[in-house]
Amino acid sequence: MFTAVDVIRTKRDAGELRKEAIDWVIDAYTRGEVADEQMSALAMAIFLNDMNAREIADWTDAMIRSGIRMDLSSVGKQCVDKHSTGGVGDKITLPLAPLVAAFGVAVPQLSGRGLGHTGGTLDKLESIPGFDVTMTEDQVITQLRDIGAVICAASSDLAPADKKLYALRDITSTVEAIPLIASSIMSKKIAEGTDALVLDVKVGSGAFMKDEKRARQLAETMVRLGADHGLRTTALLTDMNTPLGRTAGNGLEVTESVEVLAGGGPSDVVELTVALASEMLALAGMPEADPAQALRDGRAMDTWRKMVTAQGGDPDAAMPSAKETADITADRDGIVTTMDAYSVGVAAWRLGAGRTRQGEKVQAAAGVEILKTVGEPVRAGEAVFRLHTDTPERIEPARQTLNGQWSIGTNPPAPTSIVLDRIGTA
Amino acid sequence: MFTAVDVIRTKRDAGELRKEAIDWVIDAYTRGEVADEQMSALAMAIFLNDMNAREIADWTDAMIRSGIRMDLSSVGKQCVDKHSTGGVGDKITLPLAPLVAAFGVAVPQLSGRGLGHTGGTLDKLESIPGFDVTMTEDQVITQLRDIGAVICAASSDLAPADKKLYALRDITSTVEAIPLIASSIMSKKIAEGTDALVLDVKVGSGAFMKDEKRARQLAETMVRLGADHGLRTTALLTDMNTPLGRTAGNGLEVTESVEVLAGGGPSDVVELTVALASEMLALAGMPEADPAQALRDGRAMDTWRKMVTAQGGDPDAAMPSAKETADITADRDGIVTTMDAYSVGVAAWRLGAGRTRQGEKVQAAAGVEILKTVGEPVRAGEAVFRLHTDTPERIEPARQTLNGQWSIGTNPPAPTSIVLDRIGTA
Repeated sequence: MFTAVDVIRTKRDAGELRKEAIDWVIDAYTRGEVADEQMSALAMAIFLNDMNAREIADWTDAMIRSGIRMDLSSVGKQCVDKHSTGGVGDKITLPLAPLVAAFGVAVPQLSGRGLGHTGGTLDKLESIPGFDVTMTEDQVITQLRDIGAVICAASSDLAPADKKLYALRDITSTVEAIPLIASSIMSKKIAEGTDALVLDVKVGSGAFMKDEKRARQLAETMVRLGADHGLRTTALLTDMNTPLGRTAGNGLEVTESVEVLAGGGPSDVVELTVALASEMLALAGMPEADPAQALRDGRAMDTWRKMVTAQGGDPDAAMPSAKETADITADRDGIVTTMDAYSVGVAAWRLGAGRTRQGEKVQAAAGVEILKTVGEPVRAGEAVFRLHTDTPERIEPARQTLNGQWSIGTNPPAPTSIVLDRIGTA
Repeated sequence: MFTAVDVIRTKRDAGELRKEAIDWVIDAYTRGEVADEQMSALAMAIFLNDMNAREIADWTDAMIRSGIRMDLSSVGKQCVDKHSTGGVGDKITLPLAPLVAAFGVAVPQLSGRGLGHTGGTLDKLESIPGFDVTMTEDQVITQLRDIGAVICAASSDLAPADKKLYALRDITSTVEAIPLIASSIMSKKIAEGTDALVLDVKVGSGAFMKDEKRARQLAETMVRLGADHGLRTTALLTDMNTPLGRTAGNGLEVTESVEVLAGGGPSDVVELTVALASEMLALAGMPEADPAQALRDGRAMDTWRKMVTAQGGDPDAAMPSAKETADITADRDGIVTTMDAYSVGVAAWRLGAGRTRQGEKVQAAAGVEILKTVGEPVRAGEAVFRLHTDTPERIEPARQTLNGQWSIGTNPPAPTSIVLDRIGTA
């Protein structure tokens, strides 16, 4: 017999929660017997007093068992998924899923929506006219078998405890706790039934983990959780101090993704897409595969068009354009030396690309377009950012958000690699 | 502009909350703009990361300003109140208020109900047939002027933020935090408008503070808060390892209190009543007053009878008796050497004297009667406890609760004083 008060007290006093206590509290929370205010006190106690590896494993297990487990064995291919911890301009899932699928691998991208300054993959895809992110398990399996790539909403029966807890963490400042992030991500991915998983763990101002030490700890925790559940998992630690690519916003990011699938696009987006694809293909037993080539020769684009069409979208439709645009210009000649990812994310969010509460509608065309990115020369009066929105009164708040968050200098910054490290079991 | 998420994050990261942030969060919580789940996360962050003296003072201020402040100036007497942090068998308010009032001092005891293992003064008084604990501010003032003693429910307009927060803390294991206890008690007492206050800060197994160091810290915090608000405050640190007196339960405690008012009663109850009365009388400018004499000569009893009558009760009515009683007997000859206060409190609560959730009805006659207390000889087969309840199926759980929580030895324990220390500004 457990009570919420006792479970909370144990963690409050920095004690270890027994497996039975964790099973009880997750189950009782899912059923509504443990109240939201009790779970938020427990989440804060976990945030401040941490959990050991055993507790995290048990917590993840309990979250998996709060819902259904998908069975992807009838797909008849290796299933490899990717998950990013979230960043600004992170549209990688869009080119990556069809790219990897082009090699005969199944990529079941069950994705989420944006909340706060990071965008959501589903919101991005919904800016394609007709695209439907809702799919049944049977539809997912059929499309994985026929096309290989699926990007759709996760069923609400998949780790429902996590769904409830995630919404709560967002409003109670308990998001950035490693045990809670790791169990949230891994419970969904394990319940989804994928064979292997590549994690993109982001570090920097635009990420939840601001410093590399904690990001590394998160990556290691998740890789171990995967291994414990027979899910082959590797993680890349990647830089998120500067926005990824040249766009942050739903339709803008789709356009940029299509450029990458056409063999072009910003070099950092291409670099990260290829790096993640190589990891995924290696986990699928194809360490020699050349994903960069599949971007150049149109195979990835073919798969993208098939996926979009299968999910009701028109791959040839024009993306919606915003009612209003405004430029932010350089006040002198020089080189763009810094650009804060978090501020670009917040600006895009304020322009209408994101939501302030769950269920809100987002603007398909809103966002920030980066005309001159870090390392590029600019002349006084030239536009550095173009702001897009359907609501003109949002221009000014976005402009203020970016004010002082980027700089022009005289010396180009040292070139950096986007992939900082790789963390795997092997 | 504050947001709950930012305020929670600041305390989560062990930062100091500015006065403006505290004012905002208490006000927004009272209005329902800050949700219960956010306040419980903040309470846990305060529990684990503490507050400094300035934050506690600002938090207390904000709670006072969440409601009305009573004006007792028209009473025309010195107003001195007492507050206990809660213990088992703590019926002291009942004899104390009329005792001090017998000296011409006004004692405005705005009291609460029991929750958990500690009893509530209002529940005790309501076991007197006809006694009404509901009074308007005008009625309180009139009775203070005419009789001097009032024991009634605090108005819901007095520190309403505390009312909401207290209920939340109880279910989220955030009760025992010093900043939260101190601000809860002192905001109500300051809003009540008393001139002086004596605190009975309990230490031991039956108290919220189990060790003396933390109890002392709590007492010092409250004495300082009182001084900051022009409320003359002293505190006694008192022992709560053994139940106070020989009864725990509503009607049982009223009967024992009347014995004390009649010049008899258990020596520890008399000792503590007199000690607290002396402190209160000293704060009212009568350091030479002799409260023990007023218990012996019937002055305190006279005031009690007037108070009970004024509040609709019958001072001569028999107390209700329980439908069922059962004895717990000694298994050998010896001396009672220990008796755990917490267990006696839980047993009384299980018998029906307390409630498991707010609003529940309590049994007037339920509780534990201690027939042989610590230091007294007992023979094998003699009753040590008598359990009282209207619900026979509660006997067994109460019996189990007491099992192993008291002992019989051969040597009498060293005599102890109930008052451990006095903490005051002067």
